[in-house]
Amino acid sequence: MKQATNRQVRLKKRPSGIPQAEHFEITETPIPDPGDGQVLIRNIFLSVEPAMRGWVSPVANYAEPVALGTVMRSLAVGKVVASGDPEYQPGDYVTGMFGWQDYTLVDNQTNDDTNNPSIQRKVCGDGLPISTSLGVLGLNGMTAYFGLLDVGQPNAGETVVVSTAAGAVGSCVGQLAKIKGCRTVGITGGPDKVKLCREVFQYDQAIDYQCEGLDEQLATACPNGIDVYFDNTGGAISDTVLNHLNVGARVVICGTASIASWDPIPQGPRVERQLIVKRARMQGFLVFDYKDRYGEAIDTLTQWVNDGLIHYREDILDGIEQAPGAIAGLYRGENLGKRLIQIAAISS
Amino acid sequence: MKQATNRQVRLKKRPSGIPQAEHFEITETPIPDPGDGQVLIRNIFLSVEPAMRGWVSPVANYAEPVALGTVMRSLAVGKVVASGDPEYQPGDYVTGMFGWQDYTLVDNQTNDDTNNPSIQRKVCGDGLPISTSLGVLGLNGMTAYFGLLDVGQPNAGETVVVSTAAGAVGSCVGQLAKIKGCRTVGITGGPDKVKLCREVFQYDQAIDYQCEGLDEQLATACPNGIDVYFDNTGGAISDTVLNHLNVGARVVICGTASIASWDPIPQGPRVERQLIVKRARMQGFLVFDYKDRYGEAIDTLTQWVNDGLIHYREDILDGIEQAPGAIAGLYRGENLGKRLIQIAAISS
Repeated sequence: MKQATNRQVRLKKRPSGIPQAEHFEITETPIPDPGDGQVLIRNIFLSVEPAMRGWVSPVANYAEPVALGTVMRSLAVGKVVASGDPEYQPGDYVTGMFGWQDYTLVDNQTNDDTNNPSIQRKVCGDGLPISTSLGVLGLNGMTAYFGLLDVGQPNAGETVVVSTAAGAVGSCVGQLAKIKGCRTVGITGGPDKVKLCREVFQYDQAIDYQCEGLDEQLATACPNGIDVYFDNTGGAISDTVLNHLNVGARVVICGTASIASWDPIPQGPRVERQLIVKRARMQGFLVFDYKDRYGEAIDTLTQWVNDGLIHYREDILDGIEQAPGAIAGLYRGENLGKRLIQIAAISS
Repeated sequence: MKQATNRQVRLKKRPSGIPQAEHFEITETPIPDPGDGQVLIRNIFLSVEPAMRGWVSPVANYAEPVALGTVMRSLAVGKVVASGDPEYQPGDYVTGMFGWQDYTLVDNQTNDDTNNPSIQRKVCGDGLPISTSLGVLGLNGMTAYFGLLDVGQPNAGETVVVSTAAGAVGSCVGQLAKIKGCRTVGITGGPDKVKLCREVFQYDQAIDYQCEGLDEQLATACPNGIDVYFDNTGGAISDTVLNHLNVGARVVICGTASIASWDPIPQGPRVERQLIVKRARMQGFLVFDYKDRYGEAIDTLTQWVNDGLIHYREDILDGIEQAPGAIAGLYRGENLGKRLIQIAAISS
């Protein structure tokens, strides 16, 4: 149902570390009408990502920071309600960079970067909920896919360790590694997530970093050392993991969830000698560099989800009012599964 | 000329950082006679390498540390004086892991690791001095060759930055990058080495890290950023270089000359975020992993040296008494070129 105004979550203050509720404000504007070539979308699910910390950061980054006073950049999935673009019809479900707002006006002719709303693709379903287009069949799943397979290059029989193992990206990495015939060890926080890792995400071992003795836990869980480390945390957890690398190990740098702030750059043990001794590599990557191959990743992931080889969990908050505090909650680790905000009914 | 005893430089005390003269002692033993399958070599040039710090270190490493009381592990080039192995005849020049000693008894049948003396190859000359088999046509040249070409993967038109740019490895890296069509920028210490980099080793720019403002110097020397960083130093120099990486940059971790000790592991700025933002990789390597391709490297390097595309400099100390203090001098940067110790006449 079309409501009278468009509620928007705007960036009010720039955080120096993790964005908190106070850094955002909710405003209302009239709902726009689409002109020629434009599409109006009623958003249904908004995404919440650890990467959002970087998107609002003043520190050097891979994209322009979200400008103060503008709508928070976000992936979302919604339904076309009006269209001046023959490619999209009212009733189509679409996903893309729609921002944290009820309605998004997309101009596919002129918008081509992450600072403007753009449609990434139609969501056909394949029997799966549309919300999956933001998680396991969206940026998170594709991040796992390209990061593990292209950057990590795991071989059957190798040991793959994943940090934030129960998260939207990590849980998919672990299961992809399992599909590739690897031994998988997840690092996560708290008994609920350890259980989730073992029982749902099929890790061979799951370790609670909040318990004592991460180093000993890793030694026990990885008796043959570590060949691939998919790193979503950085910091002290990763420092400990590096002690267990095998010769020729690959460290995939995906995120730095454990680092409270990058301004100033925090100190940690230097890695050069370890990289030489182990002939290891650390490599950062961004899923956005793989745009040409998104279709391949989504098709493959959809198949594996439908085949029961990849399981996922969602953590759905209710209402756009939840958005401002949702990133901070993610960094506190309070979610069990991909964090989403539902702001309208699917059939709306 | 065969002398009565074999002088040997033995490891007396294990250093925690850079090995100093006091960590070694010179002893004398009888000269052995070769039995069946054994070869006796009169060493002429002994090599001095930054890597020797690692070879005597108690810290986890890629090879067993040199045992206390044993002859210091070293590459050398010498002449066969007696042989029980039909493959080697008296008068042949050979290079290999012969240790810091006058005479070496090699048993090629039983020795296959770096802890025992072994012949790497005969030195044919190709019109070049036999000493080059320890530098530009030895481990140093091959380290440059595999590290730059295989790990760094430079493309024509890219900017390649080299630390310890005037050293035995660095000077070769810079010239190899030039052969590949790259812009080359060397980082070195002091005006003499800057001059050497510019005038002999053909760097497009050479920077003195001992002068103020390394960051500004790099910005000026690398107006298009840095695509490959061949890192022989680690530490503060490398921290500064990382600020200038381009998207997709490769950091080749070859050595850590600027780090006084790895026990305990020193702290430095964490690199994870920089690696993500720049989609960059840091990779350590060891030349010993490329043994199967040594022949390719030596043939190619010999050709390029003979064609005048690669120049080299040697810094030759006189007499085995110089060996104990030679590593520390290298870390003080007092050499201009590949450091060697000549302990006998070439025609001896």
